[in-house]
Amino acid sequence: MPRSRRPEYLTLALERISNIGFADVKHWCLRRLPILSWAPRYSLQENLLADTVSGMMLTIQQVAQGVAFAVMSSVHPVFGLYSSLFPPLIYAIFGMSHHVSTGTFAITSLISAGAVERLVTSNKENFTNSSQGFLGLSDFEMQRIGVAAAVTFLGGIIQISMCLLQLGSATLLLSEPVVSSMTTGAATHVVTSQVKYFLGMKTPYISGPLGMFYIIATSLVCYFVDMENVYGINVVGPIPTGIPFPQVPPMDTLTNVVVEAFSFALVGYTVSIFLAHNSAKKFNYRIDENQELLAHGLSNVIPSFLFCIPNAAAPARTFLLYNNGAKTQVACLISCLLVLLVIYAIAPFLYWLPMSVLASIIVVGLKGMLMQFRDLKKYWNVDKYDWVIWVCTYLVTICFAANIGLLFGVVFSVAVSIFRLTRAKTVHGIQVNEDLNEDIKPMHSEYCHKVKVVCVGMPLFFLNVKKFRTEFMEIKNEILSRNCLYKHKETPLLSPVTNGDCAGDVSSDDISTLVIDCSGITFFDFTGAATLAQICMELPNQGTNVLLASCDVSLVDALQYSGFNIKNQLFFDSVKSALIAFTSKERQTTRLEALETSDL
Amino acid sequence: MPRSRRPEYLTLALERISNIGFADVKHWCLRRLPILSWAPRYSLQENLLADTVSGMMLTIQQVAQGVAFAVMSSVHPVFGLYSSLFPPLIYAIFGMSHHVSTGTFAITSLISAGAVERLVTSNKENFTNSSQGFLGLSDFEMQRIGVAAAVTFLGGIIQISMCLLQLGSATLLLSEPVVSSMTTGAATHVVTSQVKYFLGMKTPYISGPLGMFYIIATSLVCYFVDMENVYGINVVGPIPTGIPFPQVPPMDTLTNVVVEAFSFALVGYTVSIFLAHNSAKKFNYRIDENQELLAHGLSNVIPSFLFCIPNAAAPARTFLLYNNGAKTQVACLISCLLVLLVIYAIAPFLYWLPMSVLASIIVVGLKGMLMQFRDLKKYWNVDKYDWVIWVCTYLVTICFAANIGLLFGVVFSVAVSIFRLTRAKTVHGIQVNEDLNEDIKPMHSEYCHKVKVVCVGMPLFFLNVKKFRTEFMEIKNEILSRNCLYKHKETPLLSPVTNGDCAGDVSSDDISTLVIDCSGITFFDFTGAATLAQICMELPNQGTNVLLASCDVSLVDALQYSGFNIKNQLFFDSVKSALIAFTSKERQTTRLEALETSDL
Repeated sequence: MPRSRRPEYLTLALERISNIGFADVKHWCLRRLPILSWAPRYSLQENLLADTVSGMMLTIQQVAQGVAFAVMSSVHPVFGLYSSLFPPLIYAIFGMSHHVSTGTFAITSLISAGAVERLVTSNKENFTNSSQGFLGLSDFEMQRIGVAAAVTFLGGIIQISMCLLQLGSATLLLSEPVVSSMTTGAATHVVTSQVKYFLGMKTPYISGPLGMFYIIATSLVCYFVDMENVYGINVVGPIPTGIPFPQVPPMDTLTNVVVEAFSFALVGYTVSIFLAHNSAKKFNYRIDENQELLAHGLSNVIPSFLFCIPNAAAPARTFLLYNNGAKTQVACLISCLLVLLVIYAIAPFLYWLPMSVLASIIVVGLKGMLMQFRDLKKYWNVDKYDWVIWVCTYLVTICFAANIGLLFGVVFSVAVSIFRLTRAKTVHGIQVNEDLNEDIKPMHSEYCHKVKVVCVGMPLFFLNVKKFRTEFMEIKNEILSRNCLYKHKETPLLSPVTNGDCAGDVSSDDISTLVIDCSGITFFDFTGAATLAQICMELPNQGTNVLLASCDVSLVDALQYSGFNIKNQLFFDSVKSALIAFTSKERQTTRLEALETSDL
Repeated sequence: MPRSRRPEYLTLALERISNIGFADVKHWCLRRLPILSWAPRYSLQENLLADTVSGMMLTIQQVAQGVAFAVMSSVHPVFGLYSSLFPPLIYAIFGMSHHVSTGTFAITSLISAGAVERLVTSNKENFTNSSQGFLGLSDFEMQRIGVAAAVTFLGGIIQISMCLLQLGSATLLLSEPVVSSMTTGAATHVVTSQVKYFLGMKTPYISGPLGMFYIIATSLVCYFVDMENVYGINVVGPIPTGIPFPQVPPMDTLTNVVVEAFSFALVGYTVSIFLAHNSAKKFNYRIDENQELLAHGLSNVIPSFLFCIPNAAAPARTFLLYNNGAKTQVACLISCLLVLLVIYAIAPFLYWLPMSVLASIIVVGLKGMLMQFRDLKKYWNVDKYDWVIWVCTYLVTICFAANIGLLFGVVFSVAVSIFRLTRAKTVHGIQVNEDLNEDIKPMHSEYCHKVKVVCVGMPLFFLNVKKFRTEFMEIKNEILSRNCLYKHKETPLLSPVTNGDCAGDVSSDDISTLVIDCSGITFFDFTGAATLAQICMELPNQGTNVLLASCDVSLVDALQYSGFNIKNQLFFDSVKSALIAFTSKERQTTRLEALETSDL
C-alpha cells in the first residue's frame, strides 16, 4: 500500500508545482517586494509635495550624519556618504515601513568602530593590500573600510539568516522599557566617545567592560595636560567624488568580527523594528517582522560590496520624516537622489568641516535618545517594575555594551513578568444571588444559599498552581463561612421548605455545592490539571459537592487522566446549566424528603 | 528634624529588642526546630507501632543502600553506614516533612564519585596524610572519603546559603515533568555505571558529556574480551566497627569540588523538596522550602565532620515509609538506633557481601525512578508540551549530567510557558441580551443592540499585548457586524422607539457602545496600559464609544498617564453600572430626539 501511495504523493507535488500560476508568483512578489504594492497606487497629488519637502530635509541630515558617523566609525567620511545612499535605496524596495529612514546610525557606528580600531591599529600587517590608491585613498583607509564592510556584510548575513529561521516573532520579547533604556545607554556611550572631538583630541575607542569610564577619564586628563593642542582645530580633510566600483568585503576578516557583527545585527534590528512598529501603530498599517529582517539584511549585505558601514534605521531621521509629514519611502528615494548629487558635486567642499562640528551633529542627533530619560517619570507613574527594568538595563548597558544591555533587559523583563504571573490573582468568588441572570434566578432562589460559584480567571500551569491552590482554599473557606452566617440569619425567613427538615439534621444542611467556572483556563499543563483534579476530589470529602462549568474538552480529558473520575453530570457547558441541574436535583431531594416526612 | 528623629528610631529598636519575650523565642524555636512542635504531641498509642514497623523495614534499606551507595561513591562501605545514621538524625530535628528519609542517595553518590575518582586517582600526591591508620583503613581510603566529605560539606554550605538568601521560593520553577525526567535520566546514569559490577569488572567512573556511553561501551568490550575474570567474584571486604572521632573535612580540597558541590546541592535539594511536597500534599500538612533548605544543609554540613558522603532524601526509602504507614520522623529515629546496632554488631559480617549484590540493591532501589518512564503516557494524554519537556530534559540529562539536565529543564519549561502565554486567549465577548442579570435587563432591552460587553480575561503585559490587540479588534469587528445583522433583522419587531427615528439616519444608528470589563486585568505593565489606552482612544474615532468597567485604581491612573483623557463618566465600578449609565444616557437622547421630531 505505501508503495502504491508514493507515486500519488509525487503526483500531488508535481500537480502543486504545475498549479503555481501567475497569481501565486504575483502574491509572492508582493509579499517579498512591498514596493510593488504601494508604488503603483502612489498618489502624486496627495503625497509628492510632502515627500519631496521631507526628502530634502532628510538629505541634510543624511549627509551631515553620514560624514559624522563615518568619522565615528574610524573610516573615511566619503564612506558615510555612500552609506547614506545605498541602504535607503534597498530598504525602499524591500522594507514595509513607510517612515523608517535607514542609513548611518550612531550606535551601530560605535560597534563597528570597536572592530576597526581593534583590528587595524594593532594588526596592520595582517591585511593584504586589496586596493592600492583606489579613490585616491591610502591603504590604511582601505583596510579600515574593509573591516567596517566585513562587519556590515556579516551583520546582514546574520539578519537574513534570522529571517530564514523565522526569528522575527522573537521581537515579542522586546518591551518598550528595554529598548528605551538600551538605546539611552548606547547613546550615552556615543556621547562620551565624542567628548574627545569636542576637545580636539584623538584617542582610540576602547571597548570592553567599563571601557567607557576609562575613556572619559583619559579625555579629562588629556584636556588638563595638553591644553595647547586644543588650538589646532581638526578638520574633515579631502573627500573624493564619484561612486566606487563594487568590491567583495575582505572575507578573511569575517572570523575576527563575529562578535561585533552579532552585536550590530541584534542592536540595529531591535532599534529598526521598534521604530517600524511605532510608525505602523501611529499610521495604522501592518509590519511583518521577518520581511523587515530580510529588508535590513539585504540593505547591509548588498551595500557592504559598495564600501558601506553598518547601517540601521535611526530614530532622529525617522522622527524628522514623521514631523515633516512624509507619507511613503518616496521621501527616502528623493533623498537618495540628492545625496548622489552631493557625492558628485558638493563633496569636495566638505573639506573644511571641523571635527568638533561633526561631534555636535552626532550629539544633537542623539538628543532624542537621551531625552528618553524623561520616560523614567512615565514608567514610575504607570508601573514601578518597568522603572526598575529601565534603570537596571541602562546601568548594564553603560557598564558593558549595548548588546549585553539588550540581552540583560530581555531576560530581566521576562523574569519580572514570570514573577508577577506567579503572584497574580487566579480565582474570584461570585455571589450567586447577586450576579445571576433572570432565567435561573427565580428557579433556584430557594436553594441559592447552598450553591456558590468560583471563577478560575487564569491559565493553570506549574508557575501559578501553588498560588491557585492557596487562593482557591481561601475563597472556598470564606464563601462557606459567609454561607453559614447567611444561612443562620436567613433560613427561618427565606427557605420555608428546607426550614422544617433541616432544623434537626445539621450535617445534611452543611453540604454546600461549589460551581467551578473554568472558562478562564485558556490553557493548562499537567501540574495545573493535576492540581484542579486533586481539589475536585478533595472537596467532596470535606462535604462540598463540585460541579464544573465551561470546561474545555481537553480539560475534561486531562482531569480524567489525572485521576478525577468522570461522571457526566459533573461537567456542564455553562454556569447557568450547572445551576439548573443543581436546582432540579435539590427539588427532587426536597420532594423525596417531604414524601418521607409525610409517610412518617 | 531628622536629627531629633534618630534617637526615636533607636528607642524603637531598643524597645523592640527589650520586648522580645518568651513567646517570641518560643515561636522562633518552633519555626526553626520543627521537632519541638510535633514531638510533644506524639501519640504513642496511635503512631508508635506503625513507626516501629516501618523504621525496622527502613533499617534494612538504609544499611543495604548505605553500603551499596558508598561503594558507588568510590569510598569504603563503612562510610555509607555512617551516612545512614547521622543525616536522618539531624533531619528529624530540623526537617518539616514527616515521611522523607534522608541518607545515601544514588544520584548524589554518583556526583561525589565523579569528584573522588577525578581527584584521588589522578592526583594521589596532592593530599596530605591527614589520618594514618585511622579506623584501620589505608591512607588511600581516607583520601577518598576526604574528597567525598568535602563535597558533602560544601554542598551543605551552599544549601544553607540558599536558605539565608531565601531562595526556597525558587522551588516554584521546578515542575513535575522536569524533576521526573531529570531523576529518570540520572537513574539511567546510575544503572549504566553499575553494569560493570554486574559483570564483575572495575573501571573508573568517567564524568563529562557523553561519558555514559563510553562507559557502557568499555563494559561491553571488557565483557567479551575478559570473560575469565567474571569467575573471580568481587566481595565488599573488611568493615571496621564503631563510630569515628569527628574530623574537619580537608579544606584545601574545597576549591577542587565546587562544581560537584553545586551539582549535588541543587539536584539533592530538588529531589528532596519534591518528595517533601508530595508527602505534604498527600497527608495535608505544610512545608517551608527555606526551612527544608536549612534542614538538608545542616544534615550535610554536620555529618561531613563524621565522614559522611553527600546525602539527600531518596524516593525509594520515602515511598517505603508511605507504604508501611509511617506517621512521623520517629520511624527514621528508630531506624537510626538500629543502624547504630548494625555498626557495632553486624558490620563485620558484611565482609562476604558480593559486589554484584550491591549493584542489584542499587538498581532495585532505582526501580521507582526508572518506572517514571510510564509518566510519559500520562503527559502525552494530559499535555503534549509536558511530554516534549520530559523527553528533551531526559535526553539532555543522559547526554550531559543531572545538574545540566535540571537547569535545561527549568529554562525550557519556563520558555514553553511564556510561549503559551503569548498565545493564550485574552478577550471574549459577551452577548448583553443573553448573559445579563434581571435588574438591568428590562431597563435597557430596548437599547441592547447598541451595546456590547468585551471581557479582558488576562493580565496585560508586553508578552501578550500584541495578541490582545489583534483579538480585541477581531472581537470588536465580529460583534459590530453581528450587531448590524441582528439590528437589520430585529429592529422592526423589537425597538419601536428607535425604529422610526433611525430609519432615515443610518450614521447615528451605527454608533455602538462597547463596555470593556477590566476585572481580569490582575496586573499590567507600561506596554499593556499604553495599548489599552490607545485602543480606548482609537475606538471613538471609529464611531464606537468606550465605557470601562471594573478598573483598578492603578489602571485608571496608568491609562491617564498613557494619554487617555480621564472623564469620570467613562469609568464604572462594574459592568452593571456601566450599562445603567448607558441606558439612562440613551433614554435622554431618545427623549431629546422625540422632542425635536415633535417640534418639527
